[in-house]
Amino acid sequence: MGMLRVLFPGTFDPPTNGHRNIIKRASLIFDKLDVVVAVNTEKKNLFSPEERAEMLGEMVRDLPGVEVHIWDKLIVEFARRHDAKLILRGVRALTDFSYEFEVAMTNQSLDPGIEIVFMPTDPKYFVIRSSIVREVFKMNGDISRMVPPVVEEALRRKFGKSGLPAG
Amino acid sequence: MGMLRVLFPGTFDPPTNGHRNIIKRASLIFDKLDVVVAVNTEKKNLFSPEERAEMLGEMVRDLPGVEVHIWDKLIVEFARRHDAKLILRGVRALTDFSYEFEVAMTNQSLDPGIEIVFMPTDPKYFVIRSSIVREVFKMNGDISRMVPPVVEEALRRKFGKSGLPAG
Amino acid sequence: MGMLRVLFPGTFDPPTNGHRNIIKRASLIFDKLDVVVAVNTEKKNLFSPEERAEMLGEMVRDLPGVEVHIWDKLIVEFARRHDAKLILRGVRALTDFSYEFEVAMTNQSLDPGIEIVFMPTDPKYFVIRSSIVREVFKMNGDISRMVPPVVEEALRRKFGKSGLPAG
Amino acid sequence: MGMLRVLFPGTFDPPTNGHRNIIKRASLIFDKLDVVVAVNTEKKNLFSPEERAEMLGEMVRDLPGVEVHIWDKLIVEFARRHDAKLILRGVRALTDFSYEFEVAMTNQSLDPGIEIVFMPTDPKYFVIRSSIVREVFKMNGDISRMVPPVVEEALRRKFGKSGLPAG
Amino acid sequence: MGMLRVLFPGTFDPPTNGHRNIIKRASLIFDKLDVVVAVNTEKKNLFSPEERAEMLGEMVRDLPGVEVHIWDKLIVEFARRHDAKLILRGVRALTDFSYEFEVAMTNQSLDPGIEIVFMPTDPKYFVIRSSIVREVFKMNGDISRMVPPVVEEALRRKFGKSGLPAG
Amino acid sequence: MGMLRVLFPGTFDPPTNGHRNIIKRASLIFDKLDVVVAVNTEKKNLFSPEERAEMLGEMVRDLPGVEVHIWDKLIVEFARRHDAKLILRGVRALTDFSYEFEVAMTNQSLDPGIEIVFMPTDPKYFVIRSSIVREVFKMNGDISRMVPPVVEEALRRKFGKSGLPAG
Repeated sequence: MGMLRVLFPGTFDPPTNGHRNIIKRASLIFDKLDVVVAVNTEKKNLFSPEERAEMLGEMVRDLPGVEVHIWDKLIVEFARRHDAKLILRGVRALTDFSYEFEVAMTNQSLDPGIEIVFMPTDPKYFVIRSSIVREVFKMNGDISRMVPPVVEEALRRKFGKSGLPAG
Repeated sequence: MGMLRVLFPGTFDPPTNGHRNIIKRASLIFDKLDVVVAVNTEKKNLFSPEERAEMLGEMVRDLPGVEVHIWDKLIVEFARRHDAKLILRGVRALTDFSYEFEVAMTNQSLDPGIEIVFMPTDPKYFVIRSSIVREVFKMNGDISRMVPPVVEEALRRKFGKSGLPAG
Repeated sequence: MGMLRVLFPGTFDPPTNGHRNIIKRASLIFDKLDVVVAVNTEKKNLFSPEERAEMLGEMVRDLPGVEVHIWDKLIVEFARRHDAKLILRGVRALTDFSYEFEVAMTNQSLDPGIEIVFMPTDPKYFVIRSSIVREVFKMNGDISRMVPPVVEEALRRKFGKSGLPAG
Repeated sequence: MGMLRVLFPGTFDPPTNGHRNIIKRASLIFDKLDVVVAVNTEKKNLFSPEERAEMLGEMVRDLPGVEVHIWDKLIVEFARRHDAKLILRGVRALTDFSYEFEVAMTNQSLDPGIEIVFMPTDPKYFVIRSSIVREVFKMNGDISRMVPPVVEEALRRKFGKSGLPAG
Repeated sequence: MGMLRVLFPGTFDPPTNGHRNIIKRASLIFDKLDVVVAVNTEKKNLFSPEERAEMLGEMVRDLPGVEVHIWDKLIVEFARRHDAKLILRGVRALTDFSYEFEVAMTNQSLDPGIEIVFMPTDPKYFVIRSSIVREVFKMNGDISRMVPPVVEEALRRKFGKSGLPAG
Repeated sequence: MGMLRVLFPGTFDPPTNGHRNIIKRASLIFDKLDVVVAVNTEKKNLFSPEERAEMLGEMVRDLPGVEVHIWDKLIVEFARRHDAKLILRGVRALTDFSYEFEVAMTNQSLDPGIEIVFMPTDPKYFVIRSSIVREVFKMNGDISRMVPPVVEEALRRKFGKSGLPAG
């Protein structure tokens, strides 16, 4: 069947240690892993797609076979163009699995030849979501165990040395 | 990374069209798929492990790279012995995902080098579970869309031409 | 469309105030309501189908258009024979809705002409399940708000004046 | 008890094949079905209430006993004015049932004489939600199996021949 | 161990009878209960923190040991400054428990010495949420069983005698 | 209000590191914690109540204010006799929270003066359940991170040096 190319799409706003956990484990199993930063022109994001891709690039530099991309169309379109047949999603114990299932089914109805599988995040990271990272940082909380240094620095550059309502 | 060998363990009592759906789709993605019939000496099953393996063998005969096994120890043990690094589980929209997650985490704590991923069953098969097949058959209901002919025949041989309380 | 005949199937082992709540409200909406005691020869029940039907009969005596039946085949079979097109299920906030959904889908795949709808139980009764009634009674707890007097008496007759481990 | 009048309220922005599925099946069971387009002045919708009602009107033209309405007050108020005692909600396997339950309970506390029941959507339509239709269309995905032609045309008129980020 | 000081944080926009239920029951168990109005500068609220604190003050006037506070930083910071070791959250049967769990875990990772426990709201109040109160009020629905008089009056002052779309 | 006495009831068959985690954290918050081994004459257990109490006694020896009891009646009855007003339950991210809620509500309806609160188990222990410990041990898996040594030894004494199907 040749090389298995796998996609790991997401918003990554910002990328977290949970994302890094999935990427690292997947890179040990699959030949080639494409991390795809989804561009959603409707949702207001904290970091630009380019900033997110840069942070991810930094985070996966030591992982062979992992590449970071930016994409602004349907993910199945990316899969078709790059001949990838498998999409990977990280799921946490607290994930809204119904939502994940719905996204998977929608993608499959758009292209039945492309499969989606879910990989459970390591319990160590199971309370880490990008939105929580942003919220805790703005409230001046410690995020050093939630994100790699490159992301913490990027947050500091964006908001000043400490979070917003630093009072 | 070489060939990717994937395990698909289950009880398969009996195997259903939903199982066949996952096996077929996975066989198109992965080089080698080992279907593993789990032997649980504590739970009372309808079919013996051998009968279940035989039905599965029949069901996957046309799928290249798929093999059926019987196993009575921890699944991670099977994975280690056969150098498989990925375990596949089918999940339906109505699956108890918490339970699946727990099983996955337990396996990973037993061997962190072996990953588990979940593949969503096609919605067409999303109300098919082995226990429902057994129940509907015993109540004389039509199961022809739930299982392949080989399983329907096996059920008939086990119970007589129609289900139990055929009255 | 003529008279709408609605089925309300269940195990009712024993019937509770929650069941009575659904039956009463449904009887105000639908012309004819058939309460159907399901006979499951495999599951060990506390009360016989006849005992359960008798208690239910007592409980619905004041409700016009409500009739109690005993049935040992698929519920869609009952619906077909009695020309009923609608099956009603009570659901509580704590109901395992996935299970209910699965049962509904299975029934619909057996006969697409028969619909199932779910009616939410009044919050007042939302912790009442037959299995909890049995358990609390056996532990000598007060069940007078969970079941009507006819059921409490039947439990006493079955177990002696107080519950089992009356010590 | 006379004719049973049933309400099917919703936002329908836009109406989908899943809505049509519920409406058709309900129209075979109940004498009269009123589809009620809810006006929510706070939420920003894609289509105006009038546009949504027009699409629905087109979609139910062949179904006897079905009428489409626009309403900007509490749904129980509509029920009282039209002497309807039953409200119908479609639920999918992936529905947030807790939310549905809460809405039902709130309505019942506003008028205990009006009942709400849930009807499961056909599995074929179980990944179709209005918000997903909008999203897929904007990303240029194929929505022809998700909505009837009248809705697809309306989306095209609103956004140009193809979706937004057509690039 | 001395006096046990417990925090009950929330948005309370507006406070409801469900909140009052938790506060009252907790005040009978714990020596001192601090109700903490969370200030979230990002979320648009209906009532100002001061208005919410005033309503709550009115609602707990008869409860010994209960005090109302306003706080605009992380809740664990409040706990540390006031030497409180326990945070209390009310949960309803319909609560999104995964979300609550996530918030609890995040707080614990910020300060492992501060515990969070969940107390189930009385079923009587299990459909009452602040957002539902606001919505029903705006639609002119009766909220007198959902909130105490002081809150109903505050809503009237804010919106005029009846809700918004009073038409 | 004087000393706060808290109950921690459970089956503990066997006790796990997850139980120990809750007990330890609770003992740092509350003055007195009574661990109550529930005797359920109907359910078949692996260890006798006495064996379970002995293991627990060993596990909590270093924790001041913690006492272990055996009880064969309703837990609210224990609470009343010992003047305890608070019952504590550990909940994991994967806990069936609906079930926990139901048990809590049932207890509260039996004695409204006794409150139940849920404390989230540390994520480290979130895949540890007594039933999983039993299953993994019988399959010869490593349980040394799931239970304290005293429990592992007790399991060995019960089953021989390794698990059952040691083959």
